[in-house]
Amino acid sequence: MSAPTALAPLTGVSALLDAVGADAPHLDVRAPSAATASFAWDAGTAPRQGEPAGDGPAVAVPRTVAEVQELVRLAARYGVSVVPRGAGTGLSGGAGAQADQLVISTDRLDRIVEVSPADEVAVVEPGVLNAALNDRLAPLGLFYAPDPASWRISTIGGNIATNAGGLRCAKYGVTRESVLALDIVLADGSLVSVGHRSIKGVTGLDLVSLFVGSEGVLGIVVGATVRIRPLPVARRTVTAFFASTAEGVTAIGAITASRVRPSVVEFLDEPTLVGIDAAQNSDLRARGAALLLIELDGFGIDEQTAELTAALEAAGARVRVESETDAEVFWELRRSGRRFDERSWFAGGDVAVPKSRIAEMFAGFSAIESRHGVEISAVAHAGDGNLHPVVTLPIPAGADPANPPAALHHAVDDIVRAALALGGTVSGEHGIGTVKRALAAEELADRVRAAQFAIKSALDPVGLFNPGKAL
Amino acid sequence: MSAPTALAPLTGVSALLDAVGADAPHLDVRAPSAATASFAWDAGTAPRQGEPAGDGPAVAVPRTVAEVQELVRLAARYGVSVVPRGAGTGLSGGAGAQADQLVISTDRLDRIVEVSPADEVAVVEPGVLNAALNDRLAPLGLFYAPDPASWRISTIGGNIATNAGGLRCAKYGVTRESVLALDIVLADGSLVSVGHRSIKGVTGLDLVSLFVGSEGVLGIVVGATVRIRPLPVARRTVTAFFASTAEGVTAIGAITASRVRPSVVEFLDEPTLVGIDAAQNSDLRARGAALLLIELDGFGIDEQTAELTAALEAAGARVRVESETDAEVFWELRRSGRRFDERSWFAGGDVAVPKSRIAEMFAGFSAIESRHGVEISAVAHAGDGNLHPVVTLPIPAGADPANPPAALHHAVDDIVRAALALGGTVSGEHGIGTVKRALAAEELADRVRAAQFAIKSALDPVGLFNPGKAL
Repeated sequence: MSAPTALAPLTGVSALLDAVGADAPHLDVRAPSAATASFAWDAGTAPRQGEPAGDGPAVAVPRTVAEVQELVRLAARYGVSVVPRGAGTGLSGGAGAQADQLVISTDRLDRIVEVSPADEVAVVEPGVLNAALNDRLAPLGLFYAPDPASWRISTIGGNIATNAGGLRCAKYGVTRESVLALDIVLADGSLVSVGHRSIKGVTGLDLVSLFVGSEGVLGIVVGATVRIRPLPVARRTVTAFFASTAEGVTAIGAITASRVRPSVVEFLDEPTLVGIDAAQNSDLRARGAALLLIELDGFGIDEQTAELTAALEAAGARVRVESETDAEVFWELRRSGRRFDERSWFAGGDVAVPKSRIAEMFAGFSAIESRHGVEISAVAHAGDGNLHPVVTLPIPAGADPANPPAALHHAVDDIVRAALALGGTVSGEHGIGTVKRALAAEELADRVRAAQFAIKSALDPVGLFNPGKAL
Repeated sequence: MSAPTALAPLTGVSALLDAVGADAPHLDVRAPSAATASFAWDAGTAPRQGEPAGDGPAVAVPRTVAEVQELVRLAARYGVSVVPRGAGTGLSGGAGAQADQLVISTDRLDRIVEVSPADEVAVVEPGVLNAALNDRLAPLGLFYAPDPASWRISTIGGNIATNAGGLRCAKYGVTRESVLALDIVLADGSLVSVGHRSIKGVTGLDLVSLFVGSEGVLGIVVGATVRIRPLPVARRTVTAFFASTAEGVTAIGAITASRVRPSVVEFLDEPTLVGIDAAQNSDLRARGAALLLIELDGFGIDEQTAELTAALEAAGARVRVESETDAEVFWELRRSGRRFDERSWFAGGDVAVPKSRIAEMFAGFSAIESRHGVEISAVAHAGDGNLHPVVTLPIPAGADPANPPAALHHAVDDIVRAALALGGTVSGEHGIGTVKRALAAEELADRVRAAQFAIKSALDPVGLFNPGKAL
């Protein structure tokens, strides 16, 4: 073991690296350096252009579950805390690590172990990309339902850690509803299997659901049995344009009051349409001041279309059933969205509210805009009350792009508090990570937080996994 | 406080009763006696005719959440463990209590607090009957999906405690998928709210899912916000009769391979059909040796029927789309089922296996029948691989009905072990309670059980709630 250096907090990491070099050279562990800087952040906390990046953490890229166990035991022995990491596409800082920590990356645990159409399950390692699983399933007429916006680049393991939502969860549920069983490495290095390959099962406490969405604070998921479904027999895209944001938001309630449950219900407000047109050279705003972009799927697609159209038209919409070609254009505009470039400061949100309160959320934006001198736009996964507001502010000439004014973040906080006041939540689907811990503390009662910490301590008594995150 | 009596274990209960009498006469707490004997068991552990029933536990029937808190604090103070109880319709002994315990019944916490079609939620107290909620929702065109066989007589709180399944969960999921938020009284008497009224939310660990199915060992659910859905636009019953149990079981895979996902897929094997005919004077066995009783719902009911019928006929079935009148007869026969009377010993099971292994489960029954000299029949919630086998044995003249031979229970154990060997689970939907604890220990690894106990201890350090159950 090397002598202590001036970097006291790194002693543990140095000792761990020495031990790996001496006794476990088969492990791929990279020392903290500028080369690991990107492991200090995720997609939500990456530095802006011009911001300095320091040394990153130590990074291990195990090839097997046994190597994950070995790394966890070494980290515990040398007192180095562990940050599990998938693709790093999270938006709340959950996968970011400091120089005195060890990242365990799931990059090389990327096998699709099995696809069983007869059991309606797939068995995967955590580093499998969501898109890779769906590419494998599609030729079999099957799909894996959770579809976070990051689905092309995010991993199943990361989706599980954050209980990722997405567009289709209005109909198919969030990640939790698609996970049947997990293999997990716990803080003592032991490997446990929880849950069932059967669709149902109630033996003991539901540890699968507890681990889904736990943001890596309870253990590392090293395997998952997920539920797969037959591809719908038909899909259809319906657009509904409205004369105003307010009118469009009200129409969301008309869908709820109908008997149709679309697979996707995306609401885009007026500034979002204007922003997309500017970025993509489209003409959405010319067609209306707000848009509900809806996908129906399944049997009886004509019946569904008729009932949905009637409900929307009664709410004042101009409704169109899109051709496949036009539908693809709309979904691509939705995915690519606005561009937030170096000319603006911006900050995003991820609140969810009870469905009947969506209108009040949008109606409250103008007061927050006035108070803080910012602009707010939002898209909403309207089928489940999940809004993604974006607060923007043009960067004046000469200002430092890396230092947005406090008003930007105060506006985000006000949006979150508005959601809480309406019976909503700090995070609909992105998770708490580091970014939303203070606001989560406003949402959760002290006794609830104490219960969460007690569970964390019960499973990870020394606080090895992802300290300072989620809870 | 009264002097200790000969009944040493009851000291705590006596002291608690004295304290209630002296300081809290508003609490309705009944002393252990023959009058509370029925609280010693549930529907799965009730004594047979002729079996003696001893004194039951102390029983409290609080009127308010505050009274529940008060009772929990009193129980903790006097060292009396608490058994939460809904309607007592459970089948695994989870709600049974001993003379030195305090039952807290949710009987009087039976208000439907709110129904919000716009938010797609209902807010209920735990003692609300599942049927009462659906009676309230039906005129609004809505329903609450979880439908355990006991739905007319079981409570939402009990359904939550056991994560109850039912027939429709093949399509709509089990109770967990319909619970958004819970109010819970913890072991220190504190009242906490966990979860969200919004459909989505990922703030901190998922305590809602942890409490669902926890069988009363972590706290008492005193309020629930559950998800409600629009009634399907159409329902249709399809029957498929087969020449043999084996042929019928194989056809289950044909449904899985199709793109139709029925709301209900019930499989009845040959001895079940014979038993129903004997009890109900029906003619099912004359129509075939095995039956798939299927309900389709939703849009495109004709398209669904056509695809399902084609899949089933290709698998050898005689398929009929039933009229509404005939459909009602079939569902009533399924619900009323066989009768198990005083002429037979019987014992039931609740295993679940991966869907592709259902055929092997049924094929394995004859060897177990031969080994133990019993008869086995089974119905299966085939859509999710959940079997309810029943082991029977005629009672010879002069034998004691209250003392079945060990062979009966050995046969049940062998069925469970067969399910485990096929990758299945001890309990698909009834829970562990007291009845299946030994078998659960065969399913779960020691490290998993240790993790479950650690979580129990974290939330209930003194073991106040439902000791000896579930874990």
